[in-house]
Amino acid sequence: MEKKDKNTAILLMHCPDQPGIIAVITEFIDVNGGNIVYLDQYVDRINGIFYMRVEWELDNFIIPKDKIGEYFDTLYAKRYNLNYTLKFSEKRQRMAIFVSKMSHCLYDILARYISGEWDVEIPVIISNHPDLAVVAKQFDIPFEVIPITKETKAEMEAREFEILESYNIDFIVLARYMQVLSEDFIRRYPHHIINIHHSFLPAFVGAKPYHAAYDRGVKLIGATSHYVTPDLDAGPIIEQDITRVTHKDTVDDLVKKGRDLEKIVLSRAVEKHIQRKILTYNNKTIVFS
Amino acid sequence: MEKKDKNTAILLMHCPDQPGIIAVITEFIDVNGGNIVYLDQYVDRINGIFYMRVEWELDNFIIPKDKIGEYFDTLYAKRYNLNYTLKFSEKRQRMAIFVSKMSHCLYDILARYISGEWDVEIPVIISNHPDLAVVAKQFDIPFEVIPITKETKAEMEAREFEILESYNIDFIVLARYMQVLSEDFIRRYPHHIINIHHSFLPAFVGAKPYHAAYDRGVKLIGATSHYVTPDLDAGPIIEQDITRVTHKDTVDDLVKKGRDLEKIVLSRAVEKHIQRKILTYNNKTIVFS
Amino acid sequence: MEKKDKNTAILLMHCPDQPGIIAVITEFIDVNGGNIVYLDQYVDRINGIFYMRVEWELDNFIIPKDKIGEYFDTLYAKRYNLNYTLKFSEKRQRMAIFVSKMSHCLYDILARYISGEWDVEIPVIISNHPDLAVVAKQFDIPFEVIPITKETKAEMEAREFEILESYNIDFIVLARYMQVLSEDFIRRYPHHIINIHHSFLPAFVGAKPYHAAYDRGVKLIGATSHYVTPDLDAGPIIEQDITRVTHKDTVDDLVKKGRDLEKIVLSRAVEKHIQRKILTYNNKTIVFS
Amino acid sequence: MEKKDKNTAILLMHCPDQPGIIAVITEFIDVNGGNIVYLDQYVDRINGIFYMRVEWELDNFIIPKDKIGEYFDTLYAKRYNLNYTLKFSEKRQRMAIFVSKMSHCLYDILARYISGEWDVEIPVIISNHPDLAVVAKQFDIPFEVIPITKETKAEMEAREFEILESYNIDFIVLARYMQVLSEDFIRRYPHHIINIHHSFLPAFVGAKPYHAAYDRGVKLIGATSHYVTPDLDAGPIIEQDITRVTHKDTVDDLVKKGRDLEKIVLSRAVEKHIQRKILTYNNKTIVFS
Repeated sequence: MEKKDKNTAILLMHCPDQPGIIAVITEFIDVNGGNIVYLDQYVDRINGIFYMRVEWELDNFIIPKDKIGEYFDTLYAKRYNLNYTLKFSEKRQRMAIFVSKMSHCLYDILARYISGEWDVEIPVIISNHPDLAVVAKQFDIPFEVIPITKETKAEMEAREFEILESYNIDFIVLARYMQVLSEDFIRRYPHHIINIHHSFLPAFVGAKPYHAAYDRGVKLIGATSHYVTPDLDAGPIIEQDITRVTHKDTVDDLVKKGRDLEKIVLSRAVEKHIQRKILTYNNKTIVFS
Repeated sequence: MEKKDKNTAILLMHCPDQPGIIAVITEFIDVNGGNIVYLDQYVDRINGIFYMRVEWELDNFIIPKDKIGEYFDTLYAKRYNLNYTLKFSEKRQRMAIFVSKMSHCLYDILARYISGEWDVEIPVIISNHPDLAVVAKQFDIPFEVIPITKETKAEMEAREFEILESYNIDFIVLARYMQVLSEDFIRRYPHHIINIHHSFLPAFVGAKPYHAAYDRGVKLIGATSHYVTPDLDAGPIIEQDITRVTHKDTVDDLVKKGRDLEKIVLSRAVEKHIQRKILTYNNKTIVFS
Repeated sequence: MEKKDKNTAILLMHCPDQPGIIAVITEFIDVNGGNIVYLDQYVDRINGIFYMRVEWELDNFIIPKDKIGEYFDTLYAKRYNLNYTLKFSEKRQRMAIFVSKMSHCLYDILARYISGEWDVEIPVIISNHPDLAVVAKQFDIPFEVIPITKETKAEMEAREFEILESYNIDFIVLARYMQVLSEDFIRRYPHHIINIHHSFLPAFVGAKPYHAAYDRGVKLIGATSHYVTPDLDAGPIIEQDITRVTHKDTVDDLVKKGRDLEKIVLSRAVEKHIQRKILTYNNKTIVFS
Repeated sequence: MEKKDKNTAILLMHCPDQPGIIAVITEFIDVNGGNIVYLDQYVDRINGIFYMRVEWELDNFIIPKDKIGEYFDTLYAKRYNLNYTLKFSEKRQRMAIFVSKMSHCLYDILARYISGEWDVEIPVIISNHPDLAVVAKQFDIPFEVIPITKETKAEMEAREFEILESYNIDFIVLARYMQVLSEDFIRRYPHHIINIHHSFLPAFVGAKPYHAAYDRGVKLIGATSHYVTPDLDAGPIIEQDITRVTHKDTVDDLVKKGRDLEKIVLSRAVEKHIQRKILTYNNKTIVFS
């Protein structure tokens, strides 16, 4: 469980695998007074790439926060061909939720938010329907209705973008938002839009996956949370889970059983994103433990 | 657990749903001295079809075994538009196993067979490669090598069919048999050939599903046992299961983790088939409990 | 999925197993104009007991609703030594929720309730702490604070009972209510109080199961919903589930992972109870599908 | 998947958590020409202990294999208060299997062994019953029958120990061996005897767990593999898993469903042990990925 008051730096990095790379990075942190509180690394031996997430306490770190990146660049980034992001735990991320008419994922997220389970801000909920305004009101969160039609899509997305900008949104969660986002919109938030698809991807891409699952007679149904990319339901998968069904289950039963899957799988993905434990590469994710 | 020495009749039936149908069938069994030891039924309300599996002891049943079908036809089949099969527990089914080079499913099946877990006979194993002859020999089961090439397929399948006939085979289990059977061959054993596909169908149909799963970056891998139909990997699904994987798993790891899934999922399907608990309809299965 | 507007009778029964019992009951329904929409039965062969749940439409049933029990008694109950309950779908059950300070199970229940997922009324929430009044207010449900100490227990439970009576409560859900109910109180609601225990019972009975699980070094943690009986955590189990943990998980992590388990496992049990699909016997449950 | 021909050193270590410890160890490997192929570490923050498994290729390592321990002691062990074991991949471990009458775990292990899935030698199987001699013969492995009674236990265990010594056995797998080993015997193989218990420990310790599970009316049954310690079923847990059961399952059904669980859970534990990925501490395990 994340402590709320910690003051740490989080380095997510990848580079060509090379001898001594762990020693180099950990020594940099150590000699400058940082105490490592998390380190997880993974080497993709087939492609020869080294991935690492390392987090250290800043209280006695002698390099000022706003200089760490500079030092890191000078000392290591070019030399070791590092690709990295540096984040600080004290910066609380700001998350927008997009919904349509179904409330189960929204309630699950808001219940966690309000109970302080997640270190995140949720300043706004956006919907193409007014139905869930009542939920937003229960939790006292601004709710913006942006109805979308094929004709108004570009204009409405521009409006959405304005709202997101005005709230300084860092990332977006599509909590059963039943609209396909435009490529333009998606490119503004690369790997910062999390969707829940109600099937075990790549099975049943697109609309009405429970109907398709019913028709195929599967014995398990699934849900998949993934980052949104311009290819429909084809972005990097963050988390998946399944539940058992039988011949007795109608499409309505699948929908009902699926709801519990969807909300849990989406919330697990959002939590990992909040904790900055996801690294993406080649349209896949590395999800650190 | 099935008792080996029981003497029961097993009726698998479906018909248009209609009032009183359960009463009619159960009364038929009851008034004629049959003791029902199993009854499970299911109504597909959307299509209005009634499905039932009922099993009763024959010891005091006053209708002779070889006349039950006749009586049943006369009294009920036409009147209620019943579609049924009638089986007797004392008839031990005879099962052939088809394999290629991988032994894990074969060992799992033979270990159950030899320990008496299944009420079945396995008189022959057929393979397109000689590699697993040694396993067949361990268990003292005839092993027939029928190598198959595109050119020789028709001829070799004819040879296989001869062998199956000579052993009075009732159904076939493809225990990681790496050949696609011809439509002709499949039609001789309608819903009597069980395959294990190493993916969560309908995801990753066809060859090399673990490679495809790896490339897609899924977080779960699956296995699916199904009856073979002329459409590749599209027959009625009997059983599915999954296991969790992470970014750390290479294709080889998926193959390895998948093996345990494959053998368990295949054996569960074979057991249900042996117990005559599977009814097929509309390219789906009803698997009774 | 349950249709809200259906008008059915639900018979839950058990009796000594005897030939023809299914035929007798189904014929009674059939000849009197009832259309069976659900039938599931189970025979405990070891103890020779027959259990059945049967549900039929009342629209054309010729026996008036308030006479069905009488007819059933006269015709069958004594003759077949039946033990049964008869319920009607149009009677909406009334459920009270007991909570302490944790909100996750409460939110999960209320989100389902408010979205119309469950055919139930929730007229009151009772708590020994004021903390969750704010949640009750979000959903506009009366919230009664009844603080309990060892000294005041009898008096406070009497007060709770008064409230429950005033709201005509049919059954109670303990949604992480951190008080042990007295035997007297429990006996007023036999198998009508559902609890969620945060372990895989019977492992880790009593207080602080996550601490105990951590200390034992288990690789899975569980949650168990059960009917409350005077023996602590020993009532009939309705539903259980587990999630995987590793050596990396602290007690706080177990608590966090456990929350998702608890809410889902509790809600599954509550739903089965609402649907009148649970039969209890010998301190066990039969949960019909 | 383990490559069979690799030449690596495997260091399993723990020590008081201290800044720079990763850098120190990884640098030692790096500067001496070792290429790290695996590193996983874990910090128990509550108790302040650092655990690590690191594996590196020896091909260009400048310290000779038989000197690595000495150098490591001199340079680091005392200074950092390290507790470590050093293993070499080229040393194939030798494993003995103890069985009684049930064959499912034995077959599962031998099928993996014979197919080359595990980098291990199995030179002998020991049993207190002659029943499974036929299985040993199928796989051409010596089978020693050592019948045990209360009176002969000490003597028979001495005989077992002799056999194990004669085969240079490194560790023992109890594949449903139905005898309790003496404390003396266990102390000769500290955390080198792996047992499979047919319950979700700590529920249902001791004899007949499936009967106890049936009596309690659980909805899931489990299996637990653990290192054997003198306290019955209380040693460090390596792996656990569960499967769903219902009120329909008799004790015999639980036994049958449990068999699949037992064999898979035991084999997963044995594999982790073979790969030297298990570290024990405080009666718990750290199982590296």
